[in-house]
Amino acid sequence: MKDVNIGICGLGTVGGGTWEVLQRNARLIAGRAGCNLKVARVASRRPRPDLGLGDTPFSTDIYDVIRDPSIDVVVELIGGYDEARALVLAAIAEGKHVVTANKALIAVYGNEIFNAAREKNVIVAYEAGVAGGIPVMKAIREGLAANRINWLAGIINGTGNYILTEMRAGRAFDEVLKEAQDLGYAEADPTFDVEGTDAAHKLTIMASAAFGVPLQFDRAYTEGISRLTPYDISHAEALGYRVKHLGIARSREDGIELRVHPTLVPEGNLIAKVDGVTNAILVDGDAVGQTMYHGPGAGDEATASSVIADLVDVARVVASGSDQRVPYLGFESEAVTDHQILSADEFRSAYYLRIQALDKPGVLAKIAAILSDQGINIESIMQKESELHDGHIPLILLTHTVLEKQVNKAISEIEALPEVEDQVVRIRAENFL
Amino acid sequence: MKDVNIGICGLGTVGGGTWEVLQRNARLIAGRAGCNLKVARVASRRPRPDLGLGDTPFSTDIYDVIRDPSIDVVVELIGGYDEARALVLAAIAEGKHVVTANKALIAVYGNEIFNAAREKNVIVAYEAGVAGGIPVMKAIREGLAANRINWLAGIINGTGNYILTEMRAGRAFDEVLKEAQDLGYAEADPTFDVEGTDAAHKLTIMASAAFGVPLQFDRAYTEGISRLTPYDISHAEALGYRVKHLGIARSREDGIELRVHPTLVPEGNLIAKVDGVTNAILVDGDAVGQTMYHGPGAGDEATASSVIADLVDVARVVASGSDQRVPYLGFESEAVTDHQILSADEFRSAYYLRIQALDKPGVLAKIAAILSDQGINIESIMQKESELHDGHIPLILLTHTVLEKQVNKAISEIEALPEVEDQVVRIRAENFL
Repeated sequence: MKDVNIGICGLGTVGGGTWEVLQRNARLIAGRAGCNLKVARVASRRPRPDLGLGDTPFSTDIYDVIRDPSIDVVVELIGGYDEARALVLAAIAEGKHVVTANKALIAVYGNEIFNAAREKNVIVAYEAGVAGGIPVMKAIREGLAANRINWLAGIINGTGNYILTEMRAGRAFDEVLKEAQDLGYAEADPTFDVEGTDAAHKLTIMASAAFGVPLQFDRAYTEGISRLTPYDISHAEALGYRVKHLGIARSREDGIELRVHPTLVPEGNLIAKVDGVTNAILVDGDAVGQTMYHGPGAGDEATASSVIADLVDVARVVASGSDQRVPYLGFESEAVTDHQILSADEFRSAYYLRIQALDKPGVLAKIAAILSDQGINIESIMQKESELHDGHIPLILLTHTVLEKQVNKAISEIEALPEVEDQVVRIRAENFL
Repeated sequence: MKDVNIGICGLGTVGGGTWEVLQRNARLIAGRAGCNLKVARVASRRPRPDLGLGDTPFSTDIYDVIRDPSIDVVVELIGGYDEARALVLAAIAEGKHVVTANKALIAVYGNEIFNAAREKNVIVAYEAGVAGGIPVMKAIREGLAANRINWLAGIINGTGNYILTEMRAGRAFDEVLKEAQDLGYAEADPTFDVEGTDAAHKLTIMASAAFGVPLQFDRAYTEGISRLTPYDISHAEALGYRVKHLGIARSREDGIELRVHPTLVPEGNLIAKVDGVTNAILVDGDAVGQTMYHGPGAGDEATASSVIADLVDVARVVASGSDQRVPYLGFESEAVTDHQILSADEFRSAYYLRIQALDKPGVLAKIAAILSDQGINIESIMQKESELHDGHIPLILLTHTVLEKQVNKAISEIEALPEVEDQVVRIRAENFL
């Protein structure tokens, strides 16, 4: 049986997991791939004596992997932007295939990397970058290839979903975040997770493969969960919704919505029931309808599972000497369109609004008039006398679907009313119909 | 752009859907596949003037498709066993690739078909045969290739799941079945669906790809849902479980469990929340942990989505003149093992038991002694005085995990007790841990 030589760059959590699974399941993986996936070289700034690399050549200079002419596939697991970009471009220049778990790299530098790879006719695979162990890129790029994908929506950051799940019990964001950090779910600097940057990276990649457009991370709208309160979460539940931090990509006639934000989801929808650190992605295609992919979005061996699935794909191509390539983003480059990414003003959504208003006659009428002037219809309304505080009372509204700029205009006018205190709380709501 | 010539055999529900989607999304699919998926010939016993085949050559003799030398891929959508087998073997003999939605064909004749295809080096793809539009075979064969798969469990018959969902409201099996037939969900002869044959076909295929064993449909254990009562469904719910008709395949040291039967599933598990005609498959792998795949398990265009995904895979290979093949069952033939399929006696499961016993002192002690003698521990027990009837009262037990033959032995002894009326109701329960 032929060997396909793999060089691993980076032995952190995912690198270590990849090494372990490749050793443990070597025979089984060879039986599937039709060749041996042999780790022929490993490089990492920090050695990992715990892994027992044995005779496998090891160096602290990651470029040793690129320079080794025996290496067929370079696995980039060093993370970050610039160093990873340089490494991957160098690997491609040497004619090596690349497998990466680096979502930031692909979302930001993917177009450049894929162009370079196309010229050298090498594969760049990145399943592990999106939703950890869930083979969702394979589903979008291959399994759903028959479909015009209408939209997709995903819980694609486990840390954020863990925090939101815990906040349902009435606990404050800061408290749960600290706990998540203590448990190792959240990084010391949690910005990437809780402000939606990480989710936006993954969403950008999924959207490009779903709709056949170039990667445009800088056009993604991102709103975090740090300002959410248990108060709004519980009132959303009273209206029949769960609050989830979703990445949503929707293709419309006039452009593509690309947005990450807290979202009210009907409690009957399966994705509303996805709790804790898991990920789930719902995809709506014109032929298949809705399919959902659910599983661990992070973890050493879960992510390694996707890294190795990509390696098996590459190995099957290498071993057969084949020229057969699934296009980088699932579409041949000539089929990629420049369908524009829409600005937030153009989003269409329903909205949960919480307005802190004086409890006196006529206020509701004024608010209703403002909404009506903007063409905003109200789906449901909730007001609790028991929550009267300093003469003010929260008014909670759920609108029908409307353009975001109209909601924003209405909110400014409502905030300008003398009877209204504080800013209006606004959370988007989706019905996924 | 190159054409890949497709011949469709059978223009029923799925055939019609495949034609429609291939026309509607032709440009988009070509953009993904890198070649045109051209329907070059269609054959069907019954013409379908409603489809508007235009200039596409049509005949009522399906073998015209095989005989047409321009056809690269034959799509078998005629269904059934023998005729489909003959057609597929004839297509392979002509060196044509085959795409089929026929689970019965693959489950029963798959070994023979794959052997024939291997000799001619052609692809036989069957994603549409398992779980309709959900790309679960791609997940098992490719996306989870790194994993030793421990088990998989699926709701893989939409009709059955619809019936069970409706029975939760206290409605009887027969009544709901009739409604499902009126709605077109269930066939006039519902045996295949409700007795588990259809699910066993799909389970057999998934298990072979998961574990690398030959297809052994005749070894699958099958138990239907027709004898389930709303009474047991509601008592299972009182214990914190939902009843689902699951196909379960589990790899053990001593063999493989391959079984379709009503199953108690903990209500907190996502698969317990899958209602109505949808399908869902939970897969447990040693590296990734648990992933779940959810979506429409039937329907014209949903199934067509999978047929076309297979066509795109084949077309990429044909268009690149490649020799690269994903093995039929995900494992190279040399890697397929003969790990035995276990008999039902060897199943390990927990059990829900309902015993109709005389309400008098000492009966519970006798039953407990029988269970204890067989090494069966009781997880929970429920008895309602309010349900006393003719001096008898139902005793509901949930056991810990145990070998089925021990449970069967205990049940015979319990049924032999003079204080026990009727047969003991036995439903398996799984915790998926």
